[in-house]
Amino acid sequence: MTAHADAQSALHAHLTTTAALSRVAGRLSWDQEAVMPPKGAEGRAAEAAAMAAVLHARQTDPRLGEWIAAIDTAALDPAAARDVALTAKSFARASKVPARLATALADLTTRAQGIWAEARANDDFAAFAPVLAQVIALKREEASALAAPGQTPYDALLQDFEPGANAADIAALFDRLRAGLAPLAAEAAEAGPAPALTGAYPHAAQMALAREVAGAFGYDWAAGRLDLAVHPFSSGGRGDARITTRVDEGDPFNCLYSTIHEVGHAVYEQNISADVFGRPSGDAASMGVHESQSRFFENAIGRSRPFAEWLAPKVRSAFGDAAPASPEAFFRTANRIAPDFIRTEADEVHYNLHVMMRFDLERAMIAGDLAPGDLAEAWRARAAADFGAPAPNDRLGALQDVHWSVGLFGYFPTYSLGNLYAAELEVAMRRDLPNMDDLMAEGDLAPLVAWMTTHVHRHGSVLPAPALIEAAIGRAPDEGALLAHLARKVRALA
Amino acid sequence: MTAHADAQSALHAHLTTTAALSRVAGRLSWDQEAVMPPKGAEGRAAEAAAMAAVLHARQTDPRLGEWIAAIDTAALDPAAARDVALTAKSFARASKVPARLATALADLTTRAQGIWAEARANDDFAAFAPVLAQVIALKREEASALAAPGQTPYDALLQDFEPGANAADIAALFDRLRAGLAPLAAEAAEAGPAPALTGAYPHAAQMALAREVAGAFGYDWAAGRLDLAVHPFSSGGRGDARITTRVDEGDPFNCLYSTIHEVGHAVYEQNISADVFGRPSGDAASMGVHESQSRFFENAIGRSRPFAEWLAPKVRSAFGDAAPASPEAFFRTANRIAPDFIRTEADEVHYNLHVMMRFDLERAMIAGDLAPGDLAEAWRARAAADFGAPAPNDRLGALQDVHWSVGLFGYFPTYSLGNLYAAELEVAMRRDLPNMDDLMAEGDLAPLVAWMTTHVHRHGSVLPAPALIEAAIGRAPDEGALLAHLARKVRALA
Repeated sequence: MTAHADAQSALHAHLTTTAALSRVAGRLSWDQEAVMPPKGAEGRAAEAAAMAAVLHARQTDPRLGEWIAAIDTAALDPAAARDVALTAKSFARASKVPARLATALADLTTRAQGIWAEARANDDFAAFAPVLAQVIALKREEASALAAPGQTPYDALLQDFEPGANAADIAALFDRLRAGLAPLAAEAAEAGPAPALTGAYPHAAQMALAREVAGAFGYDWAAGRLDLAVHPFSSGGRGDARITTRVDEGDPFNCLYSTIHEVGHAVYEQNISADVFGRPSGDAASMGVHESQSRFFENAIGRSRPFAEWLAPKVRSAFGDAAPASPEAFFRTANRIAPDFIRTEADEVHYNLHVMMRFDLERAMIAGDLAPGDLAEAWRARAAADFGAPAPNDRLGALQDVHWSVGLFGYFPTYSLGNLYAAELEVAMRRDLPNMDDLMAEGDLAPLVAWMTTHVHRHGSVLPAPALIEAAIGRAPDEGALLAHLARKVRALA
Repeated sequence: MTAHADAQSALHAHLTTTAALSRVAGRLSWDQEAVMPPKGAEGRAAEAAAMAAVLHARQTDPRLGEWIAAIDTAALDPAAARDVALTAKSFARASKVPARLATALADLTTRAQGIWAEARANDDFAAFAPVLAQVIALKREEASALAAPGQTPYDALLQDFEPGANAADIAALFDRLRAGLAPLAAEAAEAGPAPALTGAYPHAAQMALAREVAGAFGYDWAAGRLDLAVHPFSSGGRGDARITTRVDEGDPFNCLYSTIHEVGHAVYEQNISADVFGRPSGDAASMGVHESQSRFFENAIGRSRPFAEWLAPKVRSAFGDAAPASPEAFFRTANRIAPDFIRTEADEVHYNLHVMMRFDLERAMIAGDLAPGDLAEAWRARAAADFGAPAPNDRLGALQDVHWSVGLFGYFPTYSLGNLYAAELEVAMRRDLPNMDDLMAEGDLAPLVAWMTTHVHRHGSVLPAPALIEAAIGRAPDEGALLAHLARKVRALA
């Protein structure tokens, strides 16, 4: 064999084993949030830290640099070439973070998540603030290590979730989005929201409905499972893409739309081509693209007027008279546009305001302009400005999201990028599927999922995210499609 | 610091990280058997193999030999000295097995378990035989690598489960045990078994009863959980010791006694001293000692006449008229002594015959005297001799146990050693707790668990298994206590 072939073969073996170990670490996180008993937390911190150290050692193995240098990427197929490019990038990233710091972050965030869950249950922000300060201190240290010359620490963190993005561009985009959202929120407020649901919705009926709906969206039950978690998430890929949800017996839409959202993530993972499974090019393209799928499933399909024709009778048969009486009533209730303190329950208009608030607060914390101990107060002030009232407690305020406890800074803006991509993808899909509304009304979502698999899912990250989205929609995305989608919805509800 | 102190500190750090990674690998096995969706199997094989390779590299790290040589064990406390001794032993063992073989075994047994589960579901031994032959080929290769001069391959494998034991001694012990069991089985057959249960026992009621009973046996629910598995097992330790069970709606005793059995294993793990958690001396002493706890919980307590006073009314309230009408009827039904094709459902007399059969068959397969493809036929012949009839199918025969599919050869004899230790421990416990029968009748098992924690659980493997048992019972164990226990039970049922 040539040096090129030797290096390519050694790199491939190294990467597939690293990917397998990374799946193990991911499974361990799922276990912690979905099934671990409380006293498992202490031993688990050491376990997560040990796995992080193993992965860090593999990701910074000096042989990676040698193999990459010896490989002639021009001789490779696109996926293999992309494996090399992505590895070169992650090798450079991982080499900048000292092993001590990587291990400390894994250890700390495992503990911090447990503290957050308890603080949230007790509405006790003071119990969370000290460990949040520790997480931010380590994330700032990590960001400084990662930042290129002239790059802000926050932009350095952002690369983990939306490669190529920067906070200044996002802030400008969010300003344009906010300018379009404000009149829509006002227009919706004028019409007044549909009445909220007030019945009792038994746990078992909610879970049975969630399972049925997940199946209709193409979720492969032989390649996944559904469990409960404080904060719903999806985990894993292809043959084992698990989802979690939560149940509020006073609000069936919490479980229903959390499930559809996570199904969007999981179906994406299940449909990535087997050819690239277990390789860097088999990962999803970006967090924004991932979120475009969950939000497309949740909103473009799940909250559409046509799909209500299929879904409303299912909900009615699950909950009887406690459910909306007609598809039209269901559509209005599912799209109740009104300020809400909880991001994951916010309507499509206010959801983006939630994201922008977190984007601003986390940038301020990473920049050192907002002390973590002042977060709850800052949150209340911003919520008062954006939603008309301060959050009545920190469970509905600064303690509501898991993200910061586990060190995810730079993740939140990808939610709104996802909304924006989802709206663009819907426009493109309607070009190819002019009968999309009829299909949704019949609950026949397979053609929609097939379109998405063809244009997005199967590619993994063989294409960079911007190129993938541009190829799917035919041009660079902007905020116009999302604002047009929201305007149509607000007017349909008037 | 001295060279001794440096080496001791480096060894300790290495061992606690290795233990954490080993817990991760154990959790991955739990996941596979308890919660993994079917299509997860293919990716999982690579994950298990990758973890095995990581662990093998750590267990054969040449620095272990250097640290061990530099440490003055006379300067250490007993637990730290034992850590060094156990590490020296496992280092020698792991160094003998090539990494290629360790990885291949992990990969193969992960696949083989999936094939076994499907073959068992379909009663299709022919579908399992080829992969069983592959597992045995690799186990024979491993045994040859491990065997000391003059040691048989089977004895080399036995050391993983019952250190210091050898097949010749066990065969002699089993001969004496068999000589005592035969007349007891005949005596029980003469009396005839109690009528079997014939009602319907709903899944949910069985699981609720299992949970209540597990709690009564001291299982700490904050440090564990209960799930379903094809073949019940326990997994993990201290803060996260999980159990699994199975439900047969025609037989509530299957779930009930499987649960109590696994609770015996898990309570042992939960009660190992925190001082030695996450270190070699914090592991359980041996598989035989582990099994002594599960069998003590299951039989000495769970199937005793006094405990029936507490348990029978609980079973009655779970299942109504389908349950035995009185504690005496319950006791007789729970101790139905009659040949049964399933080991885990066999009564205490026939259980040991099951173990002896597997001990003989696995020795023959490892020795090369029995071809894996001939196992089902050999099983039928032996079952006919020991239980009066050949197993009517392979699900009730050679396919019933998970052990061989996952490469556990040398494990089965520890089940009967566990029965023998359990009987000895009961004799010793009764000396200290003369009111043990009254406590069981009241369902007050805490003093029994506390005695066991003092004499067995908390010690982990700070003492070698034989020394631990001798310290607990006051002399070397033999088969006498077990035969006396079984004779009393057979006569109580006459």
